[in-house]
Amino acid sequence: MSSPPVHPQAVELDKSYRLLNHGPTVLVSATHAGRRNTMAAAWNMPLDFTPPKVAVVIDKSTFTRTLVEASGRFVLAVPTRAQAALVSTVGGCSGSKVDKEATLGLCYLEDDPHAAPRVAGCVAWLSCRLLPEAHIQQTYDLFLGEVEAAWADARVFSGGRWHFEGHDDLRTLHHVAGGHYFVPGEMVSG
Amino acid sequence: MSSPPVHPQAVELDKSYRLLNHGPTVLVSATHAGRRNTMAAAWNMPLDFTPPKVAVVIDKSTFTRTLVEASGRFVLAVPTRAQAALVSTVGGCSGSKVDKEATLGLCYLEDDPHAAPRVAGCVAWLSCRLLPEAHIQQTYDLFLGEVEAAWADARVFSGGRWHFEGHDDLRTLHHVAGGHYFVPGEMVSG
Repeated sequence: MSSPPVHPQAVELDKSYRLLNHGPTVLVSATHAGRRNTMAAAWNMPLDFTPPKVAVVIDKSTFTRTLVEASGRFVLAVPTRAQAALVSTVGGCSGSKVDKEATLGLCYLEDDPHAAPRVAGCVAWLSCRLLPEAHIQQTYDLFLGEVEAAWADARVFSGGRWHFEGHDDLRTLHHVAGGHYFVPGEMVSG
Repeated sequence: MSSPPVHPQAVELDKSYRLLNHGPTVLVSATHAGRRNTMAAAWNMPLDFTPPKVAVVIDKSTFTRTLVEASGRFVLAVPTRAQAALVSTVGGCSGSKVDKEATLGLCYLEDDPHAAPRVAGCVAWLSCRLLPEAHIQQTYDLFLGEVEAAWADARVFSGGRWHFEGHDDLRTLHHVAGGHYFVPGEMVSG
């Protein structure tokens, strides 16, 4: 699929939790020694406001985990409805066996394979420094990170708020099971 | 608000992660020595399939945390669109100052204040045993639990799947910020 060019706008760090607050599935990317990879992760959440932190579950079987542990860094990206097939495909195979860039059409905004990798076509990105917590990483596959930079596609996120109206293809994905996702519908106020 | 009588149906434990997988805001309830309370928590996620585990952020300022730490148990409940105002109200004040049952219309399915408290009107409940992890509780306000029982309202969750069609008032809430929530819209497949 081809996406229009996107120019990620920086998101204020103290608003970056809002990129994950509504519970989207994310892509987790990492790079080490010039080898980069991406996996899918429905199990993620904000962990703190300031400094912003996140939590994400990264299974031992994943190649991305190897890269996260080696580099001490990861990027969470928020994919879109237009990327539903890509998310399921990326999430269904391991970078230890498949070069996802070469074979799955996975593209990054960065040409440099050493730079923090942001998946192209997503609508938000959080670049994180791993907060090493060996016990919970080993026992629960639970990884914590401090968000050091964040960006969003200003067409659907600005002023600290999501606004998907008129951009149905850019709505976020919320994994139910088995490659089926809800996209956000109406907004209600409590 | 009045809700129709709900008869929670047991959810198989190995499917219980699906109650949280799509990223809803939850209510966290706990009881100790006959005093029970409930708070709101957008920051939650599944942590494992079998045995099922969950993670949730519970701030130090909350009265619910006191009850969780004292009892070693908590219940996550998944509230609905019809409860948006209740969720914002419950999330906006502390049980150390307000009796939420007496003043906010918060009701539980259990009359017995010593039983694991399930908030009435919700569409799913996960009863959890705290997995004591003092370091991350203290450092990150991060609480882990093993799900020992789960239930859902069969009108909108059965066979391991959410199905909200025809029940718009029972759609789950996905917190954006400031008491504004998305409800799940269309389903897409990847």
